[in-house]
Amino acid sequence: MIREMTRSDFESFWPTFSAVIQAQETYAFDADMTLEQAYHLWCELPLKTYVWEEQGVILGSYYLKANAMGPSRHICNCGYMVAEAARGRGIARALCEHSQRVAVERGFKAMQFNSVVSTNTQAVQLWKALGFNIIGTIPDAYQHGQLGYVDCYIMYKWLDT
Amino acid sequence: MIREMTRSDFESFWPTFSAVIQAQETYAFDADMTLEQAYHLWCELPLKTYVWEEQGVILGSYYLKANAMGPSRHICNCGYMVAEAARGRGIARALCEHSQRVAVERGFKAMQFNSVVSTNTQAVQLWKALGFNIIGTIPDAYQHGQLGYVDCYIMYKWLDT
Repeated sequence: MIREMTRSDFESFWPTFSAVIQAQETYAFDADMTLEQAYHLWCELPLKTYVWEEQGVILGSYYLKANAMGPSRHICNCGYMVAEAARGRGIARALCEHSQRVAVERGFKAMQFNSVVSTNTQAVQLWKALGFNIIGTIPDAYQHGQLGYVDCYIMYKWLDT
Repeated sequence: MIREMTRSDFESFWPTFSAVIQAQETYAFDADMTLEQAYHLWCELPLKTYVWEEQGVILGSYYLKANAMGPSRHICNCGYMVAEAARGRGIARALCEHSQRVAVERGFKAMQFNSVVSTNTQAVQLWKALGFNIIGTIPDAYQHGQLGYVDCYIMYKWLDT
């Protein structure tokens, strides 16, 4: 079930969130971020934050926010996270499809991912399958926990309305 | 003279700032932003904000901030504004050269402009001349005050150290 994230959901999701940022393989977040800082970033700054819940367990989450203001306010941005044990089951896909519907409902016309780590091939392939294009490559944009500097992609989709 | 911007500098620069955001031709800022909101964005959120001052008049300004956190914290971002009457005199160039030196001093390795409006050819040409490359094009990313939807460029430079 996809529903809005509560503070208590975030606390139960924190082990997943913390593992993701500590790995330094996918997100440009500080590895030593506190739960408070992460909650602010993931749940308070965005317009909306949702979870994928199964039998009381939070297996995934995403946020939706405007990517810019004024003349670029029609473009939104999302970030997705899925618990390691729940990967490969289509949860990220379902969250991304849900986020596109919510974005359209809120009047956004396009969705942009500002920094998809190029070595995160599962994510890149999934976003491509969902209609996102790589519109730019930022050289050496991400200091990967295992691989050193790697490129990031900017991915973009004009949403179906 | 280039020096750090004060609150009082921002107030005297406000007519320029306001004209730029109202034109909706270059910045993805809300056209109806208040002075307080603009001050927060331009002077409080960034790491540093500087002005170009001549005989007590503020003719230009730029901010410097990190463009992301954690594994991408080596990339900074800047924004520049020059008063209309002072354009074509090399002030933007001088501000950008200054910003690159400050960025290197603060440990940044690269500089990224997330949204250069493609029709702002003077800016695009200047950034190219200063060593920035267009690394991506965001289709229809900016609703231009005169031209409707136009593309934006993402520009990037690995800084000389």
